[in-house]
Amino acid sequence: MAGRMKYWGWGFEGEALSVAERDSLLSTLEEDFGIRPTTEGRTPGIADIDLPDSRLSIPAGLGRICTREPYERILHSFGQSQPDSIRIFARDFAHAPDVVAYPRDEQDVLALFEWAGDAGAALIPFGGGSSVVGGVTPDVGDGFGATITVDTSRMNRVLEVDAHSRAARIQGGARGPELEAALKPHGMTLRHFPQSFEHSTLGGWIATRSGGHFATLYTHIDDLVESVTMVTPAGRIESRRLPGSGAGPSPDRLVLGSEGSLGIITEAWVRLQGRVRFKATAGFRYSGFLQAARAVRAIAQAGLYPANVRIVDGVELQVNGAGDGSFTLLVVSFESSDHPVEAWMDRAAECAQDCGGIPDGDWRTDPGAHLKGAVGAWRNAFIRMPYNREALTPVGIISDTFESAITWDRFETFYSTVAEATREAIRAATGSDGAVSCRFSHAYPDGPAPYFAFHCAADPASMLDQWWEIKQAVSNAVITNGGTITHHHAVGRDHRPWYEQQRPRLFGDVLARAKEHLDPHGILNPGALLAVRRP
Amino acid sequence: MAGRMKYWGWGFEGEALSVAERDSLLSTLEEDFGIRPTTEGRTPGIADIDLPDSRLSIPAGLGRICTREPYERILHSFGQSQPDSIRIFARDFAHAPDVVAYPRDEQDVLALFEWAGDAGAALIPFGGGSSVVGGVTPDVGDGFGATITVDTSRMNRVLEVDAHSRAARIQGGARGPELEAALKPHGMTLRHFPQSFEHSTLGGWIATRSGGHFATLYTHIDDLVESVTMVTPAGRIESRRLPGSGAGPSPDRLVLGSEGSLGIITEAWVRLQGRVRFKATAGFRYSGFLQAARAVRAIAQAGLYPANVRIVDGVELQVNGAGDGSFTLLVVSFESSDHPVEAWMDRAAECAQDCGGIPDGDWRTDPGAHLKGAVGAWRNAFIRMPYNREALTPVGIISDTFESAITWDRFETFYSTVAEATREAIRAATGSDGAVSCRFSHAYPDGPAPYFAFHCAADPASMLDQWWEIKQAVSNAVITNGGTITHHHAVGRDHRPWYEQQRPRLFGDVLARAKEHLDPHGILNPGALLAVRRP
Repeated sequence: MAGRMKYWGWGFEGEALSVAERDSLLSTLEEDFGIRPTTEGRTPGIADIDLPDSRLSIPAGLGRICTREPYERILHSFGQSQPDSIRIFARDFAHAPDVVAYPRDEQDVLALFEWAGDAGAALIPFGGGSSVVGGVTPDVGDGFGATITVDTSRMNRVLEVDAHSRAARIQGGARGPELEAALKPHGMTLRHFPQSFEHSTLGGWIATRSGGHFATLYTHIDDLVESVTMVTPAGRIESRRLPGSGAGPSPDRLVLGSEGSLGIITEAWVRLQGRVRFKATAGFRYSGFLQAARAVRAIAQAGLYPANVRIVDGVELQVNGAGDGSFTLLVVSFESSDHPVEAWMDRAAECAQDCGGIPDGDWRTDPGAHLKGAVGAWRNAFIRMPYNREALTPVGIISDTFESAITWDRFETFYSTVAEATREAIRAATGSDGAVSCRFSHAYPDGPAPYFAFHCAADPASMLDQWWEIKQAVSNAVITNGGTITHHHAVGRDHRPWYEQQRPRLFGDVLARAKEHLDPHGILNPGALLAVRRP
Repeated sequence: MAGRMKYWGWGFEGEALSVAERDSLLSTLEEDFGIRPTTEGRTPGIADIDLPDSRLSIPAGLGRICTREPYERILHSFGQSQPDSIRIFARDFAHAPDVVAYPRDEQDVLALFEWAGDAGAALIPFGGGSSVVGGVTPDVGDGFGATITVDTSRMNRVLEVDAHSRAARIQGGARGPELEAALKPHGMTLRHFPQSFEHSTLGGWIATRSGGHFATLYTHIDDLVESVTMVTPAGRIESRRLPGSGAGPSPDRLVLGSEGSLGIITEAWVRLQGRVRFKATAGFRYSGFLQAARAVRAIAQAGLYPANVRIVDGVELQVNGAGDGSFTLLVVSFESSDHPVEAWMDRAAECAQDCGGIPDGDWRTDPGAHLKGAVGAWRNAFIRMPYNREALTPVGIISDTFESAITWDRFETFYSTVAEATREAIRAATGSDGAVSCRFSHAYPDGPAPYFAFHCAADPASMLDQWWEIKQAVSNAVITNGGTITHHHAVGRDHRPWYEQQRPRLFGDVLARAKEHLDPHGILNPGALLAVRRP
């Protein structure tokens, strides 16, 4: 590890926006959108935090894997959501875990299950801690005497690489860079790059049905899982390693999306790909978002499967310093480990231009096109984006995102209704206008995954309430207009009220029965995905 | 409908192998493989069948949708498996359903659930009746007072076509040709073509995780389901129509593969494609099956996603009159509704030739290549194959298939071990050699789906026992060597003992709990997928 993880924001200590980056972000928000800082907060030092006393004594046999050290408890108190950030800067660590455990193997996990069951404690599985939906927040209600966060980062090895079948057996606690580094000498890559890649884990990706950077085809980790092992309080679930099967409902698909509520994912066989040797990227400008969306639909329905086919609207480009607000950008790219991709890009470019796109640079003559122009500027901003929040929360600016998916026939109404509901909710909650933007994170033949972002100035005294008022309104709009409450961010604690509306009632009953069987004491991640229910 | 369905074999009355086709098949088996007829059976007439009396009286309110007519009870006594065929020609209709019901809508389905619960009867969902694994056979043990087969063929409409999103809402009882005919005027196709296409239904495909003709990418119906509605005795499960989602474990994936044991699939939104405008097919010959398999692996790992990338070994070509036994055939094809596919085929052909393939005709200059040579001969035989069994069972020749999937690293051992186990089992069961062949039905980057076929001469007096002895041996070999007991034929009653070994034990418990909740009286398809358990 490069250093200690920050407990107040993204990444390692010492990493943050530069002063110039922060100033540029703040001045864009102020000058272009009238969003001004309302306070000047300070990052809390460990000594500033009124950490509740731990309610647990660590049993002798677990001393080597458990700690009550303040930094560890503080680091594991929150994920990376907007409300998490607001609580951190408000120094509200009332729900800090009582103990942080670092199991080294499945035996350790089973020992923790036993201890937690005996102690009446809830267990919070924790991979990289990148949840933006309250998935790792130990806020479990009054039914538990304590909370233990189970950090899987010591189970982080690539155990086997089968280059012949292009698959690898990897432990659940391996982070993106760790597993990619181990695959690289074999000429292989998992090629799953969520924005959280650096500080999220394979087990976390599987538990939350993570979406990677690739915009079509194998968008979610779901399709990359060949088999999975999950340890539950009732025992071990290990599925058979198979390239495909039709033998009953898929066991893997029960684990995928279980969000730590049924067990802890200790390892998986995942499908790999050869490393990219051929690549082409092109950008196109459109006067409007809906026009650009039509190009995405055409490309998504052409059966070309680009690695990237994203659109970013004028506001989002502007907020991130990659545009002047006058155009929507479409980025298309193809990648292959096997063959040149010009024939694919030729056809995609035709689709893009048929829908009115103006080329942003020349992809054919300039192999570095993806690093230049609006495409390159957007790419750079995207990489730095996770660092924005810790600069904005302390100055009273709410900066949040939410993502969904919707079929094409309902998309235009969905887009305009949800965007307007977001603008209206910001006005209602804060009394001022905010900036609301949209991009597509993924695109399918039957519909896009719209990804909304918003910024607004909050009252520092009621920032959490204002955020929640907006969050409720936008979530209502997403569900009422036919979308999913999450395309790839997961349900967690924050989305559960809307997930319960979206999920077929009887399917919810089946999940509850699965939990009763696999986690009879109800100790696993209570309140994330499934309602807290103590037997 | 063109006519009445046959109860003794495949398709409509009046359709069968011609005399010349039958003679050719029998003489090939005898001359090339020494497999001779051992008897001369006769197709049973309805009057020949000793049908047990129906144990149920039809309630007045259900008279319009229920029948006890002998033809209907006989037609619904079996699916299309080898043991089904043996029992039919042995005139063993002891497990004929007492009543056949044709619900017209969900209300009818609910009324049938209520009646069956009250009457202590089991319900057998029946789509096209094409199960080759005992999925529709009303052999449910002694725990039920009667059986009612629920034929979904009156719920066969395409309800909505959303050409913009490329999706359609279709009732579960729609057969392949019916739904394709309704999609055609919209320029759309579901493009899911299992070998049973003509006489199988959307609901059946979803219930059994059907595999279509396309050999890569969207191989199973799983990926084509946008949302699904299943009616259970506990109520209705209807998932939200979404192009993608990450909100908890997928509800659709519980329905996919449920094999009629949790509910009846009444409708689904499915993903469509534009009709094919561009196509290329090429054949390549290899001296050996393993050599050809290497070409499939190269193509499957190249990211080209051909519509077809099948290999058929010498024995299988020979049995079907498409080869002389001296070569393995690779068929590669690409299809697109959007763009010419030459660039794709160029690269696949390179992979095929790099692995030693000799072109069978010239795909580039001859657009009719897929209808000629070994490729065309195999294609024609494949289409006629479902008619073979009713010609072979009555003369005492067992003709069966089984399919699996395995990762590439284990494939060569799997192939040789399973093939040898099949040859050995035939010798042990019948005292003579049979013909054992293999093809690939589907291919994934991480492994192929090998599809085995075998023929052998049986003792007419113990044909069912001999078949079962072989079936047990090959299924043991498949499971012991790491495969799945079924890649796309489903579990049914015939595969259940091996499915229970393959399935993680705790996942089996979860399914049993799901069934308890959704089907509290345990009336739905008892013994298919899940063990019979009466509450």
